[in-house]
Amino acid sequence: MKALVYQGPGKKAWQDVPPPRIQHPTDVIVRIDTTTICGTDLHILKGDVPAVTPGRILGHEGVGVVTEVGSSVTTLAVGDNVIISCIKSCGHCIFCKQGIFAHCLGDEGAVGIGWVFGHLIDGTQAEFVRVPYAETSVYKVPPRVTNQQGVLLSDILPTGFEIGVQYGQTKPGDVVAVIGAGPIGLAVIMTAGLYGAARIISIDLDANRIAQARKFGASDGVNSGDADWKQQVMALTDGWGVDVAVEAVGIPDTFEMATQIVRPGGHVANVGVHGKPVALRLQDLWIHNITISMGLVNTNTTPMLLRLIAEGRLDVDKFVSHRFKLDDMLAAYDTFGRAAETKALKVIIER
Amino acid sequence: MKALVYQGPGKKAWQDVPPPRIQHPTDVIVRIDTTTICGTDLHILKGDVPAVTPGRILGHEGVGVVTEVGSSVTTLAVGDNVIISCIKSCGHCIFCKQGIFAHCLGDEGAVGIGWVFGHLIDGTQAEFVRVPYAETSVYKVPPRVTNQQGVLLSDILPTGFEIGVQYGQTKPGDVVAVIGAGPIGLAVIMTAGLYGAARIISIDLDANRIAQARKFGASDGVNSGDADWKQQVMALTDGWGVDVAVEAVGIPDTFEMATQIVRPGGHVANVGVHGKPVALRLQDLWIHNITISMGLVNTNTTPMLLRLIAEGRLDVDKFVSHRFKLDDMLAAYDTFGRAAETKALKVIIER
Amino acid sequence: MKALVYQGPGKKAWQDVPPPRIQHPTDVIVRIDTTTICGTDLHILKGDVPAVTPGRILGHEGVGVVTEVGSSVTTLAVGDNVIISCIKSCGHCIFCKQGIFAHCLGDEGAVGIGWVFGHLIDGTQAEFVRVPYAETSVYKVPPRVTNQQGVLLSDILPTGFEIGVQYGQTKPGDVVAVIGAGPIGLAVIMTAGLYGAARIISIDLDANRIAQARKFGASDGVNSGDADWKQQVMALTDGWGVDVAVEAVGIPDTFEMATQIVRPGGHVANVGVHGKPVALRLQDLWIHNITISMGLVNTNTTPMLLRLIAEGRLDVDKFVSHRFKLDDMLAAYDTFGRAAETKALKVIIER
Amino acid sequence: MKALVYQGPGKKAWQDVPPPRIQHPTDVIVRIDTTTICGTDLHILKGDVPAVTPGRILGHEGVGVVTEVGSSVTTLAVGDNVIISCIKSCGHCIFCKQGIFAHCLGDEGAVGIGWVFGHLIDGTQAEFVRVPYAETSVYKVPPRVTNQQGVLLSDILPTGFEIGVQYGQTKPGDVVAVIGAGPIGLAVIMTAGLYGAARIISIDLDANRIAQARKFGASDGVNSGDADWKQQVMALTDGWGVDVAVEAVGIPDTFEMATQIVRPGGHVANVGVHGKPVALRLQDLWIHNITISMGLVNTNTTPMLLRLIAEGRLDVDKFVSHRFKLDDMLAAYDTFGRAAETKALKVIIER
Repeated sequence: MKALVYQGPGKKAWQDVPPPRIQHPTDVIVRIDTTTICGTDLHILKGDVPAVTPGRILGHEGVGVVTEVGSSVTTLAVGDNVIISCIKSCGHCIFCKQGIFAHCLGDEGAVGIGWVFGHLIDGTQAEFVRVPYAETSVYKVPPRVTNQQGVLLSDILPTGFEIGVQYGQTKPGDVVAVIGAGPIGLAVIMTAGLYGAARIISIDLDANRIAQARKFGASDGVNSGDADWKQQVMALTDGWGVDVAVEAVGIPDTFEMATQIVRPGGHVANVGVHGKPVALRLQDLWIHNITISMGLVNTNTTPMLLRLIAEGRLDVDKFVSHRFKLDDMLAAYDTFGRAAETKALKVIIER
Repeated sequence: MKALVYQGPGKKAWQDVPPPRIQHPTDVIVRIDTTTICGTDLHILKGDVPAVTPGRILGHEGVGVVTEVGSSVTTLAVGDNVIISCIKSCGHCIFCKQGIFAHCLGDEGAVGIGWVFGHLIDGTQAEFVRVPYAETSVYKVPPRVTNQQGVLLSDILPTGFEIGVQYGQTKPGDVVAVIGAGPIGLAVIMTAGLYGAARIISIDLDANRIAQARKFGASDGVNSGDADWKQQVMALTDGWGVDVAVEAVGIPDTFEMATQIVRPGGHVANVGVHGKPVALRLQDLWIHNITISMGLVNTNTTPMLLRLIAEGRLDVDKFVSHRFKLDDMLAAYDTFGRAAETKALKVIIER
Repeated sequence: MKALVYQGPGKKAWQDVPPPRIQHPTDVIVRIDTTTICGTDLHILKGDVPAVTPGRILGHEGVGVVTEVGSSVTTLAVGDNVIISCIKSCGHCIFCKQGIFAHCLGDEGAVGIGWVFGHLIDGTQAEFVRVPYAETSVYKVPPRVTNQQGVLLSDILPTGFEIGVQYGQTKPGDVVAVIGAGPIGLAVIMTAGLYGAARIISIDLDANRIAQARKFGASDGVNSGDADWKQQVMALTDGWGVDVAVEAVGIPDTFEMATQIVRPGGHVANVGVHGKPVALRLQDLWIHNITISMGLVNTNTTPMLLRLIAEGRLDVDKFVSHRFKLDDMLAAYDTFGRAAETKALKVIIER
Repeated sequence: MKALVYQGPGKKAWQDVPPPRIQHPTDVIVRIDTTTICGTDLHILKGDVPAVTPGRILGHEGVGVVTEVGSSVTTLAVGDNVIISCIKSCGHCIFCKQGIFAHCLGDEGAVGIGWVFGHLIDGTQAEFVRVPYAETSVYKVPPRVTNQQGVLLSDILPTGFEIGVQYGQTKPGDVVAVIGAGPIGLAVIMTAGLYGAARIISIDLDANRIAQARKFGASDGVNSGDADWKQQVMALTDGWGVDVAVEAVGIPDTFEMATQIVRPGGHVANVGVHGKPVALRLQDLWIHNITISMGLVNTNTTPMLLRLIAEGRLDVDKFVSHRFKLDDMLAAYDTFGRAAETKALKVIIER
């Protein structure tokens, strides 16, 4: 079969590889019908994630049809159309029992990370993929939900909702600021309404992205290039700051911004993937009664998000900016890699 | 009357000052029968808290008898024996309505900080003190609770419980590590059992303090001077770290320690008062699904703690290491200021 | 001044009475500009609420301008336009301290009920009203909110949201059934989206009311007169029942219906005011892992609801079916009292 | 092998039956080393549980050694010493995913009830038992925990804690009343301290049982045979009632008692198994802002309770009143069945 194979920093190929086969009784094999590319895949290609070794098939998002099931699998059958969560869950380790699937200890990789596809085992940017712990790691696509909508639930929607909105303890009436209007920031913006946010402020350096954020549900926009950006944010609150400040970029400056605009008693939810330490101004913040949260998605809200999509309450299709065929995988990477120029959000790659 | 007056960095006096008088209808005047000294008072004396200006009477902890009430006060009467919370609460501002009394906007000082005594208005290390917003800021001492027990509820017990134990989201069965075994760390240790902690690990550089921590409820002790201190902590868990790591010192090193021993899905509760920024290793921690909390006490658990003391469920008297008369205020400061040598925990100062 | 005075079962008059005056330093006097009638007022008129004695001015909803303030009031001034909550809160009793304003012990009436207007003290269907504990019991009408919108926050909106949606523990993705499509049921339906309900099912005997419920946000309707009404509800879920079943009528049959359609692990929220006991089928339900909640509104979500209205996120104006002048109070009662015929929801009565 | 077999109402035998064998890849076989008898077993024997058909091996509590594992089981091995939870959990159905194992849909029985042993499949009062979904339904007995302690975690301790203490929303400082001082009431009493209850009041008709309750942690006792029992309870609170009222009997009278003593804003937690409906006084209670909870144990606190026992923080051995050998199963039933006379609490039955 064909697959997108990492070949060391800066190198990848769409090449022939042996198809996956069942290794454990709890595995299934899925034929990928729809996949996509995540910013994390680009990081891996730069060589930023040393755990990924050459020869690894990339990708952790995918929807497709089950073609083979392991001997203990009873609730999935050949022919089922399923969403593969970016996080596998064994269902019985100490972390899974608490719903922290992000740190599943299941023996694939066994390093306490639920994210294994395209990381510690072969991923979804391929014609077929082996899915470990399938009964606790995939979700059947229900009626009225398309594959395209489904693949947006592999990672980006639950990440925005769980790590941004839920970890940020958003509640009805809150003012939520989202710093960074890239795909993940937009996922936070789209789902903040599920807890009744009164105002959602998109903060970014790019006026076009702020304009786009309004289409995803932002009620207000602030350009962080403006000298008075902070005063603009404060003016959109009662003067004491936002209830929830979501960092959706991953650099020290934006994290610092989040700590500057959060009100006493408020929450900073870090969603960004960081590459260096940040200076936390504890000398000022210790007295502010704030929480700072961070983490990898658990995907335990996937069934709930599926229900909302089926009911027409989340218009996720607007995330899709481009569409490719699997054999055009390299073109899809090229488009997604030049997002500033191509305006790519999520590129859908289909069989 | 006599009072302990701040006279600029490094200078204080026990001197005659005019007695306080009612300024607002919601005020009461309290004759101080029992007070104490807090580490914060020492910081102020060093000049570390610029908002405190020369001439200010220090102290934010006290128990005494109401001697005069403002015209709108109906639920307190002359003769009532009351605990003065270190945090005043107006009861109707946006923060008080949410229980965040720490950031009460009530007009005394009006800077969004509930801590006013010995800071923005005159404090409790005096023969009399004016208490603003009295009906929402003091608690009557119930039967079976002594003044000495009461004064420990002005600040230290609720601070340890609210900012350490509650903000740390402690739950039954948790392993809780408390870094720093000074008075505030001991208050965390004493109250962690209220949420059923399975193990409470005291971490300190001083073996004597660790031994003392065991008397306050620590089940385990680890000397942070040991090269393998972290491994020792991990060995007391399932190998994945503690559920709750409480920072009770206030320096970058101990904050960093807390982030090293917290498990995925766990909580870092900062209780320490910090003077400089700390480097937060977000490049490692972003994926750990942790929360970091911090804040000033709200004292909204004071009635509950009072009930536990009245029922004999919290042996707070063991906090008292020394006892002085009001007129020996300077000797009390001297003893408390040399705590390493005198082994002072809380010094009780009585009329 | 003129006021609507209860004169014993079945009797009322719009008559001259002495104007109210300040009795306590925490009181204010408000000139009523907008008021309305609640179903409870009709109950009182029938003689169902013995605590209400002849001579009492009725009404517990109102918006108006402060004309006089007590001596301890500092945060309200003559001329302020305020919403009077149907629940007064002293701000410092054991219940208020926990946010359970519904059971405020403040000395007006002093029977542990926060609802005093038109019940234990004179109410808002008058030209002027005395408001006790004003600083903790009224809310200034913010810019962009009309008096008409404000009066809907005196009782009905917070009641539907707090006792239906919040006590029902509604969460994103839930299926919520609301039994009864009268004004209070519609308030539940309108606010269930604040916690991201996926489906909101209106259940009623009247097809017209169900049609109206859809305009307030119901996604589905079931006529409880249908023999298979329960199967219809189940078909709108995964077959195991609704997450939240709200009783918004107040009779045994509808309470029983709620317990029949709630799923294992779900919640029954009783909003209706009941006049007799109900038979609770504990022999079946004990094993169902459900909660049943009930209560009087606390109005502690009023500031939050105000913010949502100001942001245009709650279209509350659609509650208003009729509009009267104060002097037409009796006509307003007549129209509201024949709601089945007049299709009255909320009748607005203005100065 | 030998087993205790139900033979229709009033009839049972300790007889030879074929040993169980693996039926599904997720099964294990356990050799029972320690089991016990539950009040529910007595109900079944009376014929009160029609789902139990003649020929069924009874018992849902047990500790023993794994003797055989299904083909997909990787985290359990022959020789492991395990606690069998009374509730099986498939780990991937809609209820298990939410932690409501009590309503696991896994296909054994497939009626939405997690309790299958000695009910829908053969149970633990036998020499061997087949355990379905073993990886998500058993817990390895850790060092420092005995089999006797372990078997008390099969049902009684988690039931008391989850359905009484947790569903009752017990929090530090609460006054908790437990109506009924039988084994399950004692389990509530023993675990209420895990959330810091200030007072635990045991209410029973039998002075001896109240005296025993004090040994399990009750701070107070009230004899419900006293005419003024309710006033006695109120006198142990601030006069407004208890925070949490736990019903641990299962009859209408005791349920009614719970609703009479709960304070506004408090919680009634029903633990008892009921056989008939109860009259719920909604005409009085609708205004009380209370919750009423009920349910079957989920056993998701079992790992946590194990940790507390291992740390010596729960002295569960005091539940054991009698000890028998497996071959004396009928004598054990006789002793447990005459508990009023024999003072039996839990009878331990060992290999």
